Amino acid sequence: MATTTTARIFNFSAGPAVLPLEVLEQAQRDLVSYPGIGMSILEISHRSKTFDEIIQGCEADMRTLANIPPNYKVLFLQGGASLQFSMVPMNLLPAGGSADYIITGAWSQKAAKEARRVGAVKVAASTEGEKFTRVPRQNELTLDPNAAFVHMTSNNTIFGTEWHDLPDVGGVPLVSDMSSDIFSGPVDVSKFGLIYAGAQKNLAPAGVTIVIIRDDLLQRSAPSLHTMLNYAVHAENQSLYNTPPVFTIYVMRLVMAWLLKHGGLRAIDAVNTRKAEKLYAEIDRSGFYRGHAQKDSRSRMNVTFRLPSEDLEKTFAKEATGAGLDGLKGHRSVGGMRASIYNAFPEAGVDALVEFMREFERKNG
Amino acid sequence: MATTTTARIFNFSAGPAVLPLEVLEQAQRDLVSYPGIGMSILEISHRSKTFDEIIQGCEADMRTLANIPPNYKVLFLQGGASLQFSMVPMNLLPAGGSADYIITGAWSQKAAKEARRVGAVKVAASTEGEKFTRVPRQNELTLDPNAAFVHMTSNNTIFGTEWHDLPDVGGVPLVSDMSSDIFSGPVDVSKFGLIYAGAQKNLAPAGVTIVIIRDDLLQRSAPSLHTMLNYAVHAENQSLYNTPPVFTIYVMRLVMAWLLKHGGLRAIDAVNTRKAEKLYAEIDRSGFYRGHAQKDSRSRMNVTFRLPSEDLEKTFAKEATGAGLDGLKGHRSVGGMRASIYNAFPEAGVDALVEFMREFERKNG
Repeated sequence: MATTTTARIFNFSAGPAVLPLEVLEQAQRDLVSYPGIGMSILEISHRSKTFDEIIQGCEADMRTLANIPPNYKVLFLQGGASLQFSMVPMNLLPAGGSADYIITGAWSQKAAKEARRVGAVKVAASTEGEKFTRVPRQNELTLDPNAAFVHMTSNNTIFGTEWHDLPDVGGVPLVSDMSSDIFSGPVDVSKFGLIYAGAQKNLAPAGVTIVIIRDDLLQRSAPSLHTMLNYAVHAENQSLYNTPPVFTIYVMRLVMAWLLKHGGLRAIDAVNTRKAEKLYAEIDRSGFYRGHAQKDSRSRMNVTFRLPSEDLEKTFAKEATGAGLDGLKGHRSVGGMRASIYNAFPEAGVDALVEFMREFERKNG
Repeated sequence: MATTTTARIFNFSAGPAVLPLEVLEQAQRDLVSYPGIGMSILEISHRSKTFDEIIQGCEADMRTLANIPPNYKVLFLQGGASLQFSMVPMNLLPAGGSADYIITGAWSQKAAKEARRVGAVKVAASTEGEKFTRVPRQNELTLDPNAAFVHMTSNNTIFGTEWHDLPDVGGVPLVSDMSSDIFSGPVDVSKFGLIYAGAQKNLAPAGVTIVIIRDDLLQRSAPSLHTMLNYAVHAENQSLYNTPPVFTIYVMRLVMAWLLKHGGLRAIDAVNTRKAEKLYAEIDRSGFYRGHAQKDSRSRMNVTFRLPSEDLEKTFAKEATGAGLDGLKGHRSVGGMRASIYNAFPEAGVDALVEFMREFERKNG
């Protein structure tokens, strides 16, 4: 195992993203023969006691971490947040009803597009006119008190914006796509009707999607729904209606244990704040770098910034990669740079990027 | 790495199932730092060159192995065969049309149940009256020449039956759920309109589903379909519409390379035949064991058999587990024993089971 920690670079990728090194090392140790069972974690039955312990342990750790109330179910699904764009309205939007969507970026738009296949969608607000550089303010929201639910995207990976305070949606169930900032800090689950998240940023490798749903909402899932698209079926079967992605859930369990071991969501919140502040301070320092997001909507997970020219941006990306800082090229719809610094991204990598930015400005400013 | 091969037992589980040891060892070596990229395979972007090479290499090996014609697309999806039960009729069954389903077990029944949510289903044949101990004969099939497709299940995991010859369905597209016997021997893909398979028996760990579809059938996917449920969208995007299960596809690539290295589908066919014949010969030897499947429908992947009493079956399962032969308890709907001996199951494990069966009969017969 002496070679395992060699040659790791700093991976700023937007997702799939960096995982804790100790999680990777644990997964590696157990990969061929999981202790006590004589087979690989890749080979075990999802009906085995070993897997029961893994999935139940994962859920228990998640409940402890986020203080998930007992009247919420945790589901382990497949298909990514993209399939949730469909499953949310299929299950929660009754015939003749309508849902409010808050549009803060490409993912919200995709979510609303799928919802329109199911029923009526009202746009409660959109910041597209400002190139999605911020999330809306409370007084900009046009909310329907009879909406089946309000949909929001808590963090916008592409634009680098994040809600700092939850919108007040009255008694209407709030549904949030938290794929890119789930468990980056404390979350009051009781404020939500449903939370969903693809795992591949803050939870696990790609291949599993978490849904946390208030149990009264399960009654909305019509029996006519296709079985695999029905939340109530997955809840009744403890996410074992069919074969779940065993290995991915196992790694998620290791990540949850890692979060608990290191102090839980309050502790990671402090680290994430510190990491993001270091980068934003550098962006704000001289004017050479320009942040894409407005200050009151800045994301702690995805830090987006531009340089004085596209040529300099190309040079920056290339030289950064050469310096072991990988994945910094921004999404094509925003341009520039994007540093994704999820929970598992090491603070030393942020320090290295800040150092690189200063040096780059000194040479090119 | 000295400990990696220790303490492996023989895993007769129906799926997730055993993987080749050399595949596990390779995955273990690369787990923390994939050669040349400085990050784990669990962390790489699905938009990276490394992953392009993996998914394209996997598909290329699959095409070589099964001689997949160029007018067929290979899709890498999520949700298991269970989601395909819905996606097949959603995409292929037009409004007002009907589909023929051949019912040979619990999985066929589930597939037909989901199809009825989409449109008309005609049961072309069912062997339920014979407790699914065989697949139907050609002259028992009632086929509608105007059917949108004919659906079959090539191997019935629970009952231990398998089609030895394909049904003749004329010009109607044949759709086959091959989850439990895909690539267990040569397959003439050109005989099918669509093949689907959950990976966790013969292809990879749980978490990815393969769809091989004749490209003219993609025209049936209506634009009104939900994006993630639309074959045409996945085909247009080379299975990268959203984040695929990166690691699982990587392991599948290793399994495909393993199959090629060991002689391809003809070679594995010979091994699978030999393994199954050893077990069936033992079942037929004395009458102490009774096979569930009729001889002309016996599965080479799942060998189901009963003992003279349920008490003896319990003792058999318990003692077998104690002897390092795990996962032999049959499905509750059939009872008795089930030995799942997929591609990666070692012949030495079959020999050990035959030895154990003889010894058990000697003591209890």
